[in-house]
Amino acid sequence: MKWSTELPVRFGEIDQAGVVYYPRFFHYFHQAFEEWFREALGVSYPDLVLKQGIGFPSVRVETEFMKPLRYGDRARVEIEILEVGRASLTLRYELYRSPGNILSARATIKTVAIDNNSFTSVPIPDAWRERFERFRTAPPSA
Amino acid sequence: MKWSTELPVRFGEIDQAGVVYYPRFFHYFHQAFEEWFREALGVSYPDLVLKQGIGFPSVRVETEFMKPLRYGDRARVEIEILEVGRASLTLRYELYRSPGNILSARATIKTVAIDNNSFTSVPIPDAWRERFERFRTAPPSA
Amino acid sequence: MKWSTELPVRFGEIDQAGVVYYPRFFHYFHQAFEEWFREALGVSYPDLVLKQGIGFPSVRVETEFMKPLRYGDRARVEIEILEVGRASLTLRYELYRSPGNILSARATIKTVAIDNNSFTSVPIPDAWRERFERFRTAPPSA
Amino acid sequence: MKWSTELPVRFGEIDQAGVVYYPRFFHYFHQAFEEWFREALGVSYPDLVLKQGIGFPSVRVETEFMKPLRYGDRARVEIEILEVGRASLTLRYELYRSPGNILSARATIKTVAIDNNSFTSVPIPDAWRERFERFRTAPPSA
Repeated sequence: MKWSTELPVRFGEIDQAGVVYYPRFFHYFHQAFEEWFREALGVSYPDLVLKQGIGFPSVRVETEFMKPLRYGDRARVEIEILEVGRASLTLRYELYRSPGNILSARATIKTVAIDNNSFTSVPIPDAWRERFERFRTAPPSA
Repeated sequence: MKWSTELPVRFGEIDQAGVVYYPRFFHYFHQAFEEWFREALGVSYPDLVLKQGIGFPSVRVETEFMKPLRYGDRARVEIEILEVGRASLTLRYELYRSPGNILSARATIKTVAIDNNSFTSVPIPDAWRERFERFRTAPPSA
Repeated sequence: MKWSTELPVRFGEIDQAGVVYYPRFFHYFHQAFEEWFREALGVSYPDLVLKQGIGFPSVRVETEFMKPLRYGDRARVEIEILEVGRASLTLRYELYRSPGNILSARATIKTVAIDNNSFTSVPIPDAWRERFERFRTAPPSA
Repeated sequence: MKWSTELPVRFGEIDQAGVVYYPRFFHYFHQAFEEWFREALGVSYPDLVLKQGIGFPSVRVETEFMKPLRYGDRARVEIEILEVGRASLTLRYELYRSPGNILSARATIKTVAIDNNSFTSVPIPDAWRERFERFRTAPPSA
């Protein structure tokens, strides 16, 4: 199961080349990640972070940029889960440019569940594992 | 006594209009403020914030924008102190565009000294008052 | 007539003090400005900028910050028009923190209509003047 | 030959987790890239972009994040060239946290030389190829 959300490209997100500055794609991905918790997983990411003391920092990022985004475009970000490890969560993001539904960027981002106070990894709680699994599209690795 | 620092305009700070997105002027001012502590006041702002637990959030901002900054320009930010109150510090920022030394923006920013834990105002410690006073250019208000 | 929109506070918008970094309030205001064109004025700001070649850079900003925004809050931004000049547009922004509907910041921002190519001011077209006037809450200055 | 520059971590670059928001690492890399042109290659990136009409957008990014950056840290960014292709330039960035000189992040970023007007790839001019080669640390691929 995939999930998607749409973000407008903002005036201040354009760079000297007239396209969205590429570091902002990662901000788009993170915004989509936050919306995904709220809309699809039923707990807001702020609640997870502030009340349960858990976070998911990124430890590995692979991204291809195919097409630039310009002002007036909208970015549809699709999220799916590639792997739910013991303490890690690997997500695939595909960013489609609207109008036209053109694949603009694709990222694989591995995150690790951490305790926010100690900044050390913790096992993903079972209740969360189940929710994440609903968005897994790849078979589990052996 | 005035103090100044210079910041390059970065590729990703330009907006759709081809000039520095105006909210980033406030980031330039804050970066200059941080440098001012380190270079001119002899204690880094991180030390003030992290070790002494004091911060200076902005409570009032007045800014005029005269000339845009473009890619390739450098921003020289001049800082002076207008007033050192019991718990407040009011700064004047002038941002000059290089090359040409053209006044691009002028801001008056009132900050309040706070305890970072309680987020409530605290009197400015005397040792800090003395340092701030060295950069005051206006006579004290009655 | 006032108009409002709501923006979530994002994970990456928080600063070292644990609150939204104040320059980002101006990015919130600008995002609200862009949404206002699209939703309330019937022409997207990208169309205005890219097809009609008109922009509204800020020339004067006055802002008071009353209450900080934290992660998990939402920012409701209310827009009203204070003055429609020959070539200028002065807006009032009030940012309310949700939950609680607490006034967090209030800004008066004067913008000037410009031709994007020459970066010189142009009279506000009559069709636009009418639309702006619908959101004016203050009587016209004499 | 490697080249490096140092950037301070700024107050507004910290996120809710108390560390530098990971998308900003890519902004650090890009700032280092811009400085590298100016200091090491003898032509500012603004001149390359604005006068020669050439740009180097990123098309592929691989990054590992090892250690977080906190407020008060400085980021030393080391640049080396992995490959100079016909129309592409692949860079390796290593970001070291100061104090301590701890490897915090490592990125491989492939860029493509483009004509800024057409946004299509162009061969890297020979004069540039020579300059880039001076920073190549890996043997050319067969």
